[in-house]
This record gives sequence, structure tokens and C-alpha cells, in this order.
Amino acid sequence: MRQFIVVGHDAPTTAEFSLDDLPGAGRLDLLTRCVTSSLLLSHGIREDVRTHLVLSDAFTVSFDGSAVQRLNPDERSTAALVRNALDQREEAVGRMAVEPSPGVSLTRVGLDGTLDAVADDGPVCLLHEDGTSAAELDPPADPVFVLSDHRDFGEAELSVLDEHADRRVTLGPERLHADQAITVAHNWLDTEGFSDYSQ
Amino acid sequence: MRQFIVVGHDAPTTAEFSLDDLPGAGRLDLLTRCVTSSLLLSHGIREDVRTHLVLSDAFTVSFDGSAVQRLNPDERSTAALVRNALDQREEAVGRMAVEPSPGVSLTRVGLDGTLDAVADDGPVCLLHEDGTSAAELDPPADPVFVLSDHRDFGEAELSVLDEHADRRVTLGPERLHADQAITVAHNWLDTEGFSDYSQ
Repeated sequence: MRQFIVVGHDAPTTAEFSLDDLPGAGRLDLLTRCVTSSLLLSHGIREDVRTHLVLSDAFTVSFDGSAVQRLNPDERSTAALVRNALDQREEAVGRMAVEPSPGVSLTRVGLDGTLDAVADDGPVCLLHEDGTSAAELDPPADPVFVLSDHRDFGEAELSVLDEHADRRVTLGPERLHADQAITVAHNWLDTEGFSDYSQ
Repeated sequence: MRQFIVVGHDAPTTAEFSLDDLPGAGRLDLLTRCVTSSLLLSHGIREDVRTHLVLSDAFTVSFDGSAVQRLNPDERSTAALVRNALDQREEAVGRMAVEPSPGVSLTRVGLDGTLDAVADDGPVCLLHEDGTSAAELDPPADPVFVLSDHRDFGEAELSVLDEHADRRVTLGPERLHADQAITVAHNWLDTEGFSDYSQ
């Protein structure tokens, strides 16, 4: 399994936002693209992926590729799934998840709680410009990638992350958007050995 | 320079579409993501990129990274730039471009005319599942990548493309969305030699 944790620093924590202005809703445009870039292929879904959006360190919305339904590639419809999840925020108590739609769950945990929840799943790789080049590494099995939104991680976050993360990895010399980094990370794992058997 | 030509088979050719339903507007959600994934970095723009959206083989909207302004990462605002361009379609006569906003131009040409216009710019690489693995190739200088939207290229298109294209390249074993393929293609070019000088 591959997992992605995306930290949304300014993300909404209530359903009171407009689908007509996703950048204004704490950069929900970026966060929804992270969901679709991690879970969707052309005409297919990556069933072995789970993606967690950490919303302002207060709630986490998780998408499970093996169960999610009605996930379309566009930002607006994915944002509607997030809004539906937040609409049930009162029912989310601690780590007890609510599942407002198939494969979409909401928990009242922030980054620390989300990292705890995946602690036994596989190595945690922080995608960060100050990391080891992916070109020098073999892709890990069952990785949990952690990324930030448009804002850099703060000192306190990096301290929490360095406790959990097995390593920092950088995917190239350019600073990518989080959704672009997810696409490149997938390709890194997809193409392991690919050239050996392709034409 | 890097260029991307994205063929939108069902894309609108008039400004009469709603920004609230981009998937219903001939998959303009996908086409706008192709624009932003090709031109935008995190907090930056790729000035050496031009991206051409071929709209239903009738019009082409081109974005020039060295001149474009007010390009935001979200689908909706990028779709508004496309709509503004189509709003001036009557003024686009043949290859005479209109430039409704800085760095965004509209021409009344389809795929063939767009390929003719870039013929001297660099090698044309068709991104296609039946191609040579990128892992086996050195990235070309000044490439013109051609991609299709959610629909496969038709026989007639492939015939036109094979006349112009220097080769077919495939980026991995998974079938990616066009915007994801653009991100991976950029990373292929970005990381050429990257591991040699990174940490």
C-alpha cells in the first residue's frame, strides 16, 4: 500500500465554504488535486492507496482507494466530498471515524494523530527539498509520504515529523506543488524495473 | 524550451459554458490542469514552456510561460482564461492570433495547424502507451510533447501525428491522466543529471 499525508495549514474545518472559490477556502483546490493525483489513473483508480488531508491540524479526511466511490478527477466534485465529510464533524469524536460517503472518513485528529495511526503501516518519507535524491534510492515498500501544501512546514511540525519520518526524500531540483510531487512519487514507484520489460 | 500540445476532443469552441461544471464542458477540468501542471511550479512559473490546447480540432488556445499573467493553480480561474479567449473567437482568422490576455493567444487552427506552427521548434514526442520507455532514453532538447485528453487518439489523428512525431515515448506502466503525464515528463527533463549534484 502507498499512503500520502498532506498537511493543509489553512484548510477549512467546517463545511462553510464556497465551491466557487476553492483557492479562497484555504487552498482546497490544491488539497483536492492531491486526492485525485494520488488515487486516480486514466480510467482507473489506485486501489492500494490511502490519502489523508490534515485540515488545519484539527481534522483529517481520509480517502481509501479500495472503497471510494464517485470520485471524479475535478477539483469541485472532490471538494464537495470534503464538504460533506466536514458537515458531519460533530459526530467525529477523537479517533472514532465517521464515514459520510463510501471510502471517505473523517477523524478529529491533526498531524500527530494521523502519523500515529499509520505508524505500523510502513516507512514514513518526508517529501522535502532538503532530502536525499530519489534517483539515488530504491523506492521503499509500503511508503507513507508526507507533504505540505503551499506553505512550508513550521519548525514545530518538522520536529514532530522528524520523530516519525525514516528519511527525507527530494524528487528533483524544482520545487513542485504537492499534487505534482504525488504524481512524481507514484511514477518513481511505478517505474521501478519498468525499463527492464518495456519495449 | 519545452512545449506541450494537448488534444481536447470534446472541448468547447465557444464561450458558452459554465465554470461550475468543467467536466461537463468537454473535460475542461482536465485541459486546465494540463495548463497549470505544465506552467506552474510551487511559487513559480516555468518561463521556458508553451502549452497549446487544441479545442475540438477547430481552435487552439496557447499559454506562453514567459508572458502569461494572473495564471493561478486552480481549474476554475484557468478555465476563465480559456473562456475569455473563446469570447474573441470571431477575431481569430486562420493563423492570425488574437491575444485576449497577456501570454494567452487564440488561433483558428486544429491539430495539424498547431503541429505545423511548432515544426521548427524541436523534436515532436508523442506521449503514448505504445512507446519507448523514457527510462531508456536521454531526454530530448526543446521537446514538443503531444498528448490526448480522456479519449484515445483516433486512427486519422495518429496518422497525422506519426507524420510529425519523431518518436513515441511512454513514461511508465500505468496509464496516466494527461496532466499527470505532463508532470512526469517535466520531472524526466528536470532530473537529467540531478542525482549527480544533489546530496
